[in-house]
Amino acid sequence: MDDFVFKNPTKIIFGKGAESKVGAEARESASKVLLHFGGGSIKKTGLYDRVVASLKASGVAFVELGGVEPNPHLGLVKKGIEICRKEKIGLVLAVGGGSAIDSAKAIALGVPYAGDVWDFYAGNAEPAEALPVGTILTIPAAGSEASTGTVITKEEGLLKRGFNSELIYPRFSILNPELAFTLPPEQIAYGAADIMSHLLERYFTNSRPVEFTDRLIEATLKTVIDAAPRVLANRGDYDSMAELMWAGTIAHNNLLNTGRVGDWATHDLEHEVSAIYNVAHGAGLAALFPSWMRFALPHDPLRFAQIANRVWGIELVPKDLERAAHRGIQALEAFWTSLGLATRLGPLGVKDDRVAEMAEKLSAKGTRKTGNFVKIGRAEAEAIYRLALR
Amino acid sequence: MDDFVFKNPTKIIFGKGAESKVGAEARESASKVLLHFGGGSIKKTGLYDRVVASLKASGVAFVELGGVEPNPHLGLVKKGIEICRKEKIGLVLAVGGGSAIDSAKAIALGVPYAGDVWDFYAGNAEPAEALPVGTILTIPAAGSEASTGTVITKEEGLLKRGFNSELIYPRFSILNPELAFTLPPEQIAYGAADIMSHLLERYFTNSRPVEFTDRLIEATLKTVIDAAPRVLANRGDYDSMAELMWAGTIAHNNLLNTGRVGDWATHDLEHEVSAIYNVAHGAGLAALFPSWMRFALPHDPLRFAQIANRVWGIELVPKDLERAAHRGIQALEAFWTSLGLATRLGPLGVKDDRVAEMAEKLSAKGTRKTGNFVKIGRAEAEAIYRLALR
Repeated sequence: MDDFVFKNPTKIIFGKGAESKVGAEARESASKVLLHFGGGSIKKTGLYDRVVASLKASGVAFVELGGVEPNPHLGLVKKGIEICRKEKIGLVLAVGGGSAIDSAKAIALGVPYAGDVWDFYAGNAEPAEALPVGTILTIPAAGSEASTGTVITKEEGLLKRGFNSELIYPRFSILNPELAFTLPPEQIAYGAADIMSHLLERYFTNSRPVEFTDRLIEATLKTVIDAAPRVLANRGDYDSMAELMWAGTIAHNNLLNTGRVGDWATHDLEHEVSAIYNVAHGAGLAALFPSWMRFALPHDPLRFAQIANRVWGIELVPKDLERAAHRGIQALEAFWTSLGLATRLGPLGVKDDRVAEMAEKLSAKGTRKTGNFVKIGRAEAEAIYRLALR
Repeated sequence: MDDFVFKNPTKIIFGKGAESKVGAEARESASKVLLHFGGGSIKKTGLYDRVVASLKASGVAFVELGGVEPNPHLGLVKKGIEICRKEKIGLVLAVGGGSAIDSAKAIALGVPYAGDVWDFYAGNAEPAEALPVGTILTIPAAGSEASTGTVITKEEGLLKRGFNSELIYPRFSILNPELAFTLPPEQIAYGAADIMSHLLERYFTNSRPVEFTDRLIEATLKTVIDAAPRVLANRGDYDSMAELMWAGTIAHNNLLNTGRVGDWATHDLEHEVSAIYNVAHGAGLAALFPSWMRFALPHDPLRFAQIANRVWGIELVPKDLERAAHRGIQALEAFWTSLGLATRLGPLGVKDDRVAEMAEKLSAKGTRKTGNFVKIGRAEAEAIYRLALR
């Protein structure tokens, strides 16, 4: 087990109607908040009105900034930073899924920083402080509600980059599974793929031994595999939505990578795809992960055999563990297919003609490798993209 | 899933030599600490010297108070409170296992409180504040290093009572598995039983559904079942000790009871035993849990069958699930026996003649019931004690 430091101070308020507590929670950090969200869905569902009522009841003033898009853009982040400075905002409150939360985190990082907030994402600076962030989660998926991460897309050059800092662990996150009842089925499926990818990225590690966290990851994967189809079959199934939502948070709150180093190449491979094609992050991950797995399998067949056995119940035949390893990948593909997801890039509209460009960007013209389990440079990235296009 | 609020702010510093960071961590909260520990073992092993050196290097002054006994006593807690007030201590630093940490938490609660600190344990008052606590863990067992709990024994009347408060989540906890290498084998075994009991107390719940936390608990149980025998076979097995130690923390840091209510009757039953006989907490739990399980089984045989299948690998035969349930209890007994633990009260020196007295104290003369999965009053407690004496 690798040495580690773990501290996750995010307060989780979980349950039916939990959004009514947002005013009281926000009041502990600020008297004025930036209410940050995506399209109009929170107004249609009445969530917006309930949030505003709770803020008012607690005497919390707010300025609103909607319009966050999937794969949130730097332009809106900069607008948010400007508003926060002018209005002397004390907390950024994201209401939505990973995009709204990631955008809120970027704003929170940018407000006290004199330079361009993109500096952090470009790896050119480290933040010294950040505004507090609060969230009301509406989509079980990204795990940003209790994570150190934020991913932003810079319009110029379509650069999609992630950044991590303990400064942006949300101060509080409100999780009410009922808020996800109105999601369209594809959003549930994308979310499940995103959660499972966070778990798989952590699972494929060269750290040893990692028995405890292996088992915790397997437990969380099995929970998603059990809950996601139930939720798709019956969107109003509170209990299954609750399991999916809480699993999504734990999948990405850093507990499951204590003592181990995850891989994360597939996330980087996906960022290049969604930066160009603007596909949903979860859809891109489902279309890439099986191909990454087939590419990476020779590096450590036993690890693939273990997950096949423990998560998918595939019998291990000692004289041919590779067979179980491959059957595990097939089981993952079959599961994602059953959720309506594509497990190849073609159906997402990705074409062969931009593979070289994506590999070029991922590897910074061949100067950088990504991934920890297996190192992925330009040539490896091209190979995986082509596998995923077959 | 029940509604819940979860926030665990304890900073975990895990790894080889991690105790060298104690000075820097303590310095963030205080310039003067109470160094609180048990017998002389930390002086023999050199840990005391390393802690003192780290405190000095960070400019942290300290006053020491050793002598914490297993089942820590109120008398020493009161002495600690007095010292902290007189010396203007800013943080209580426990170096040891659950007893030293629980005693430190009691001191931390008592310092700012005008009344008798026992008021909290007796259920007669709620604390408004507490000194910060830091810990250096030397025994994987109690989980107190990242929990809200503290258990203290009042000498007068031999009353052993627990108290929980978010105010006493340690500010930081330093976990170095090497520090447990010198433990005698019985301490390892008691610790494993304590950890497993924390998991079992959470597992037996009437909350539904609890699939996700069930699976996390099962994962943690399987980790302990795998690691504890390895550690007993080779005390210097860092990797297995690390798995056991981190599992012990997660077993009791409140994550695994999110959305569910645990039972905890066996802990209360054990407190009465160890208050009179002064047996180790883990030994008492191992001697009682199988009997509590047999007593509780008719309440929900499916839950016992599930754990038998998922944790002990016992095949489920649908027409006779109770058989699997019973085989699961036998598997637990066989495992504990393999660690050298007694699974009945007799070998601990407990005699039939004080059963009535223990049941009387547990139930406050028949006026109180304990446990949530199954309610345990005077008659039920007597029945379980007698089962455990057979």
